[in-house]
Amino acid sequence: MPKGGLIEELVAALRCLPGVGPKSAQRMAYHLLERNRPGGLRLAQALRRAMEGVGHCGRCGTLSELNECTLCTNTKRDAGKLCIVETPADVNALEASTGYDGLYYVLMGRLSPLDGIGPRELGLEKLSNRLAREQVQEVILATSATVEGDATAHYVAELAREAGIRAFRIAHGVPVGGELEYVDSGTLAHALHGRIPMEE
Amino acid sequence: MPKGGLIEELVAALRCLPGVGPKSAQRMAYHLLERNRPGGLRLAQALRRAMEGVGHCGRCGTLSELNECTLCTNTKRDAGKLCIVETPADVNALEASTGYDGLYYVLMGRLSPLDGIGPRELGLEKLSNRLAREQVQEVILATSATVEGDATAHYVAELAREAGIRAFRIAHGVPVGGELEYVDSGTLAHALHGRIPMEE
Repeated sequence: MPKGGLIEELVAALRCLPGVGPKSAQRMAYHLLERNRPGGLRLAQALRRAMEGVGHCGRCGTLSELNECTLCTNTKRDAGKLCIVETPADVNALEASTGYDGLYYVLMGRLSPLDGIGPRELGLEKLSNRLAREQVQEVILATSATVEGDATAHYVAELAREAGIRAFRIAHGVPVGGELEYVDSGTLAHALHGRIPMEE
Repeated sequence: MPKGGLIEELVAALRCLPGVGPKSAQRMAYHLLERNRPGGLRLAQALRRAMEGVGHCGRCGTLSELNECTLCTNTKRDAGKLCIVETPADVNALEASTGYDGLYYVLMGRLSPLDGIGPRELGLEKLSNRLAREQVQEVILATSATVEGDATAHYVAELAREAGIRAFRIAHGVPVGGELEYVDSGTLAHALHGRIPMEE
């Protein structure tokens, strides 16, 4: 093939992106080389600066280039509520679509004993200390609706109870706009079991 | 949102990749930051080096980090055949799947009068000089099977004829493995019109 090492190396390096296979990587490399070299250089710089400059917020654990992220240092947020999520992307999703005004705690994972991730590996001691020290009144468990996510939620709820704090789990059920007949049986059973009284 | 300028800039810069929208860009950025920082740094370096180090082959015009690409300088290739393609990716596709042993000439585009791309903009004079000067016996037109690709093929065939060289167009017809009923009518008409005698 009429390509030197640089193009081959670029195609190989592009495959570290999620969802990018050999064909897409080649298409991306040629697109940048033929049509958008300034964009490629901008991406190179953005990558280097982000990989080197982004760390974790010392308080909530989310990705941040500051020692404490902008959410944790925002005094307008209600410090009485603490929402527990698995990843920084979850924080973004909640911020983008809900009116939640409390703080977050990002686990950067979930309990998964089979993968050797227990309470210690997940750093739950730090969360426990925070619950004991700060004036949190309500812990909201927004871990994912999987077996591991549920186990993590139960474990953290127990930590909250030990600190005398009420713990809530976000609701699981039929997605808004979803037709009953297309909803999987597990979700449907969960939705029926978790029925709530209708307001009059 | 709990992100500083660096993450935002990375998400924005990733959108220069073809087929990457806001959701994919965010997923890619978080994936690299949370799970693959070495991969991100490698990609940053590969991008910078390729954007700065890859130019065009002085002879065939394809992307290459050398003054003349490895295909043009390969003395085992048959210099009597010259295959005309639109892009470097076309060269790769032909090299990967055919046993073609001649040389290439990459137009880096095609005639498109509506976009202001005429013979002069496409640098066809250089191709014309090459046809007059070198011992090419056969020009193979592998431009795309579109109106512009066909027009480009006809124009280059005329240049070849002026230089006393035979010009061939790659065959168009029903794709191998394709069922007739799913082939579009234009292709089918082309295939019937271009029928060739069966070997006995």
